[in-house]
Amino acid sequence: MRASLMYGAGDVRVENVPDSVIKYPTDALVRITASCVCGTDLWPYASLKPEDGPARMGHEFIGIVEDTGSEVTTVSRGDLVVSPWSISDNTCEFCRQGLPSSCIHPQANFWDGETDEGAQAEAIRVPLADGTLVKLPVEADSALIPSLLTLSDVFCTGYHAAVSGGVDERTRVTVIGDGAVGLMAVLSAKRLGAEQIVLMGRHQARTDLGLEFGATDVVSARGEEGVEAVRELTGGYGSHVVLEAVGTRPAYDQALGIVRPGGVISRVGAPQYEEAPIGIGSLFRHNIRLAGGPSPARAYIEGLLPDVLSGTIEPGKVFDAITDLDGVPTGYQDMADRKSLKVLIKP
Amino acid sequence: MRASLMYGAGDVRVENVPDSVIKYPTDALVRITASCVCGTDLWPYASLKPEDGPARMGHEFIGIVEDTGSEVTTVSRGDLVVSPWSISDNTCEFCRQGLPSSCIHPQANFWDGETDEGAQAEAIRVPLADGTLVKLPVEADSALIPSLLTLSDVFCTGYHAAVSGGVDERTRVTVIGDGAVGLMAVLSAKRLGAEQIVLMGRHQARTDLGLEFGATDVVSARGEEGVEAVRELTGGYGSHVVLEAVGTRPAYDQALGIVRPGGVISRVGAPQYEEAPIGIGSLFRHNIRLAGGPSPARAYIEGLLPDVLSGTIEPGKVFDAITDLDGVPTGYQDMADRKSLKVLIKP
Repeated sequence: MRASLMYGAGDVRVENVPDSVIKYPTDALVRITASCVCGTDLWPYASLKPEDGPARMGHEFIGIVEDTGSEVTTVSRGDLVVSPWSISDNTCEFCRQGLPSSCIHPQANFWDGETDEGAQAEAIRVPLADGTLVKLPVEADSALIPSLLTLSDVFCTGYHAAVSGGVDERTRVTVIGDGAVGLMAVLSAKRLGAEQIVLMGRHQARTDLGLEFGATDVVSARGEEGVEAVRELTGGYGSHVVLEAVGTRPAYDQALGIVRPGGVISRVGAPQYEEAPIGIGSLFRHNIRLAGGPSPARAYIEGLLPDVLSGTIEPGKVFDAITDLDGVPTGYQDMADRKSLKVLIKP
Repeated sequence: MRASLMYGAGDVRVENVPDSVIKYPTDALVRITASCVCGTDLWPYASLKPEDGPARMGHEFIGIVEDTGSEVTTVSRGDLVVSPWSISDNTCEFCRQGLPSSCIHPQANFWDGETDEGAQAEAIRVPLADGTLVKLPVEADSALIPSLLTLSDVFCTGYHAAVSGGVDERTRVTVIGDGAVGLMAVLSAKRLGAEQIVLMGRHQARTDLGLEFGATDVVSARGEEGVEAVRELTGGYGSHVVLEAVGTRPAYDQALGIVRPGGVISRVGAPQYEEAPIGIGSLFRHNIRLAGGPSPARAYIEGLLPDVLSGTIEPGKVFDAITDLDGVPTGYQDMADRKSLKVLIKP
């Protein structure tokens, strides 16, 4: 079968690899019908050292179950399924509390533990299939596929930002970042009824989509100037909730400048830093809370599915490019160059 | 009148100072009947440079209103009142949202703006008296005074830790620190129904009081050993909520080791650090939240008052020493030496 491999920074290749096969009785083998490139894939695309490669890529997909291990009971051959970006058993202490991203099953992981599997490929072995996969009540060629595919990661991640931030109808929200996750955070804040949604971004095609998703204001300035602009839009007080969808230190510092006393900074962009200010001069003095983390996507999928199936929300609009497997290397480069927002792959 | 002044580290003196008087129409003049030394007073007691002194000390008190400015309407001469540790108007945007510690009135401050006033004295001028003071329905010599005095800071601070941490009857709590705030955090977690309350501390008289206040377990070990002990007590998963009542980096690091995935670290010990780990290796990976800050005491007093008046809770038990003004310097030293837990002052 064919699959994408990253050999190093800027070097993605599509090659023939051994066919994925069932290894454990809890596995499912899935023929992938739709996959995509994630913003987090761009971090290794910018920095992977050749000695750490090649790595199989991709953790977001929809596909048709082709085979199942003997213990799998919830999906069977022929089912169309969506997979969240992390593998979980859906039965452990943390899964039961809605945090499958912290599943304690030995086989649970972020696909990073599955070194010979990746979703930017023709097929994939899915560990803990019962806990991980969710059946979809549509055909593989449904027009809803792009929106359904966002449930595997990007929409659930944006939604997690908004839920973790406690967004409701009394909330003024600022979203930092006009990437796909930031735009999904806008859509999610809108869905939760936010009173105001300020989107910080400078790429007009993206901020226009943000306005379509429910942003009430767009601020293109960054740094001090951006902070001032948001303060002005929020009556001088700052935002109740800042959804930080970038992951860099400047984005965190910007969030500190924007959040109001008693507010929340909810982070879903994987932090590219470890230490940052949290003392009296930053979070503590005004009771500012910090929330967020990797999205427990599996816990959100069933709740978000009805609105996607009904077309009430169309998160699939974040895909502005589509390619086959051969086009994956170009897809990475286009996303890195910000020519594409998010690339959908039809293997 | 007589008042306590801190001239530098380890150097507290009681001296004659000009009488406090009404300066603004919103002021009240209060004759202090009960006051105390705060754990935060020990920070300057350990580090104040002589060139930054002398500083008037004390921000927790009960007293009798002696005079009021022309605009004061809620308290009058002869009323017994308790003051929260911060001055606020109780009407601004943040006060109305329950965060008087972030009051935006120009006269609002943490008493640090009132350089010629302090509560370890015979009398005090209280700015924004209507917003700040709360009338007490008892006499100045009531046996309830110690417990009522804790409403000015230490009890409300411990309570804020527990409220900010979201403690409820499904919560396993660990409290870091057996100082007065830590013990109040135990009492507060108990009041909110916590399923388990582990108190980390090594001073037996204090941890015994913690057990009386509702701690279910005491862990005297610190660092890695302490973390292991708490993990063992919590089924290997860690605590849902860690109430960090110390404020040092080691205490924060200990909290990181103890909190479980999806849990909360709620800080009320003023951080003696600015930067600390919050990235993938600490908070982010397992969706651990960070909460807390200075206690909005004024917003809690009325709600906690009935249980104190009825004797249902007895937070005043944290006072293990009592002195007059002359004994204040010794009181500081005894608290610094951990000979006294918290010193009550009867001027």
